[in-house]
Amino acid sequence: MTVTTEALATTDLEFARQLGQQLRVDSIRCSTAAGSGHPTSSMSAADLIAVLVTRYLQYDWNKPKDPNNDHLIFSKGHASPLVYAMFKAVGAITDTELMTYRKFGSRLQGHPTPAIPWVDVATGSLGQGLPISVGVAMAGQKLDKLPYHVWVLCGDSELAEGSIWEAFDKAGFYQLANLTAILDINRLGQRGETEYGWTLDTYRRRVEAFGCFPIVIDGHDITAIDRAYGTALSATGKPTVIIAKTIKGKGFSEIENKDGWHGKALPPDMAERAIKELGGIRHLKVKTAKPESGQPAIKHTDAPVTLPTYTKEDKVATRKAYGDALLALGAIPDVVAMDAEVSNSTHTDEFAKAYPDRFFEIYIAEQMLVSTAVGMSVRGYRPFASTFAAFFARAYDFIRMAGISEANIRLVGSHAGVEIGQDGPSQMALEDLASMRAIHTST
Amino acid sequence: MTVTTEALATTDLEFARQLGQQLRVDSIRCSTAAGSGHPTSSMSAADLIAVLVTRYLQYDWNKPKDPNNDHLIFSKGHASPLVYAMFKAVGAITDTELMTYRKFGSRLQGHPTPAIPWVDVATGSLGQGLPISVGVAMAGQKLDKLPYHVWVLCGDSELAEGSIWEAFDKAGFYQLANLTAILDINRLGQRGETEYGWTLDTYRRRVEAFGCFPIVIDGHDITAIDRAYGTALSATGKPTVIIAKTIKGKGFSEIENKDGWHGKALPPDMAERAIKELGGIRHLKVKTAKPESGQPAIKHTDAPVTLPTYTKEDKVATRKAYGDALLALGAIPDVVAMDAEVSNSTHTDEFAKAYPDRFFEIYIAEQMLVSTAVGMSVRGYRPFASTFAAFFARAYDFIRMAGISEANIRLVGSHAGVEIGQDGPSQMALEDLASMRAIHTST
Repeated sequence: MTVTTEALATTDLEFARQLGQQLRVDSIRCSTAAGSGHPTSSMSAADLIAVLVTRYLQYDWNKPKDPNNDHLIFSKGHASPLVYAMFKAVGAITDTELMTYRKFGSRLQGHPTPAIPWVDVATGSLGQGLPISVGVAMAGQKLDKLPYHVWVLCGDSELAEGSIWEAFDKAGFYQLANLTAILDINRLGQRGETEYGWTLDTYRRRVEAFGCFPIVIDGHDITAIDRAYGTALSATGKPTVIIAKTIKGKGFSEIENKDGWHGKALPPDMAERAIKELGGIRHLKVKTAKPESGQPAIKHTDAPVTLPTYTKEDKVATRKAYGDALLALGAIPDVVAMDAEVSNSTHTDEFAKAYPDRFFEIYIAEQMLVSTAVGMSVRGYRPFASTFAAFFARAYDFIRMAGISEANIRLVGSHAGVEIGQDGPSQMALEDLASMRAIHTST
Repeated sequence: MTVTTEALATTDLEFARQLGQQLRVDSIRCSTAAGSGHPTSSMSAADLIAVLVTRYLQYDWNKPKDPNNDHLIFSKGHASPLVYAMFKAVGAITDTELMTYRKFGSRLQGHPTPAIPWVDVATGSLGQGLPISVGVAMAGQKLDKLPYHVWVLCGDSELAEGSIWEAFDKAGFYQLANLTAILDINRLGQRGETEYGWTLDTYRRRVEAFGCFPIVIDGHDITAIDRAYGTALSATGKPTVIIAKTIKGKGFSEIENKDGWHGKALPPDMAERAIKELGGIRHLKVKTAKPESGQPAIKHTDAPVTLPTYTKEDKVATRKAYGDALLALGAIPDVVAMDAEVSNSTHTDEFAKAYPDRFFEIYIAEQMLVSTAVGMSVRGYRPFASTFAAFFARAYDFIRMAGISEANIRLVGSHAGVEIGQDGPSQMALEDLASMRAIHTST
């Protein structure tokens, strides 16, 4: 059975409703074909994504590098069937390619990576997509000064990660009104109920206390979703967090809101029944709105740099030399720097004073420090992130994932080895050579 | 000049006031003698600690292993001058030893470590003392079932760390009424004002939203501090968070609330003026209240264990074998387990079902997962913490610090190497051998 809705404009709410069903069906189809994957985690968020791509997202799928495109990051990277089903709906990939999901050699991996041109960063280690999105939004508001919007879909289990709260904190602190986080509160994690289940008010109070603007909705009410996105784009002056109550496995009554279906493809017979209940296979095509054209406020060009020089006799602390060199590199317009409240030690403060608009104080939040660098690299900036070398250990998982993203970032740690002496081992980077060399694409 | 207050009972508020001055003076003396250290960060918290040790802390300094002792953890480990000045005041160390601070061979290192018998864990990497304290408090409430209280002193800069919010979250979730976090909000970080300065209400709203009971006070008002501690020990049913507005460098007018004095010892001439302004050198001795005697509900003894056996032909997933082995080890009464919401994958759920009182669901918060293990090791338990091997990268800095603490913990990662295949590199532990082998005391 194939449903068509030719009579509907693709921006109609009814079209979005139909598209939500298509996204569910396609999430089931590709994961059942693969024999693994997370269809139920995709089905809970299908309506949220359907409304977004039909009526709000501004993106030219033929020009993923267009600097005016919105960004859409799946912090819940395991909802990759939904990502790829969306790519099919917007015409970026074919239905045939969709069905290569998780197969050896396919670019449609189990968790999305930038091997695909419409994916900004690799996700799959939870709690990272949101912090990176904050970095992208900071670039949009403070550097590019372009009106693109950053949308990020989060799961509820990942809200237990501290990095999520580092991200909400920085989003609130920097008043990133160009950021909307969509929380898919489907109540069920991998092994049962999440920490707070459907207690949406707990999330609302936390998000609000962290300086964001919360909107609580039924994540399957197309009209409510539509209204929430509209509000998010209005001038709230704050980042918006849409807290959407959803149902895991939504649309297939046999598994809706049932435990034991996380990360499991439906067996073929169940998939058949599910597709039938969801109204059959569709091939609706969405015409995503294209962004208006504009140019980033900062040019991505090279510029002459006069690096400091030293004689053999000069006794210069390596961190001072770093500060001087970074200051010199500031001549390049898209060099940016960020630091975790130790810029007077790392000497990044020299750059901060000379180029305050391109310096970002992240305070003592190293996960967010690295995420900011990754987010800005998504926008083509050349980020230099600095703190004590020992404290990059705090962001090790973020560095690992940045390696998978092949993000072009520079991490600069001061106080290497035992040189900090009296301060003791907690301040000494003793493990960094071993740990950092193990990271894919690190140099 | 030496001030004595012999007429005062050591539990009097006026005694506490005098003791606060002594702690400041001694923090200055030892750091000036060392030529480095953090006197100003110690001075802001001196009154908070003075009231605590004179009137609330229950601790037998001659028996640091007494299971009934309260715990006092300095999450802001750089306030080590204050830690050691307190040790002198309670008679645990001599004034002579105090003056060995930061000297080669002295156990009074730049940041405290358990090389000292009254220190539970190494701190100095910010944002770790609180999560570990939560682990200790969980042991107290759920395992030991003893009335000891866990006190933890936090700085304000470290409140930007996500791990702090993982900790408040778990403290609230598990309703750890036996935990009191004291936030020393002295407004100034290493390189200037902190993210929220003295905006205490921001902290209050966040802490409350995370399920804790906030009390906002002037951290130099002895009576207010006293009342706050009293409330913390009353039956709030929640963890208490005392948000104390303090002044960095408090007591020495030349540097009070002035930027540029973080992590700097006073030069000798300034130290002399400071000590004079603070009323001179004192040698007050505190008689800390001893705890009542009691025995932990769980005995720390060995027990016969029948481990599962396999034949060469058996095809058993390593994680299933782990689950079976852990279940068998459950026969030992002080074996405990914790998992980051993947216990059905790691097969820790077998232990969880058999021994629900000794299993702790940490949800997806790996920093808190490792901290819980460390905290429980402080109480003599044998913790097994499990998640996907790849995701221990998230807690790498906590594992690094656990190495410095020489904490006796077991970290068990499933899905090693590329075996998870279709799920992609984000789920694969590819760096763990290199990174974990670099950790001091890891095996």
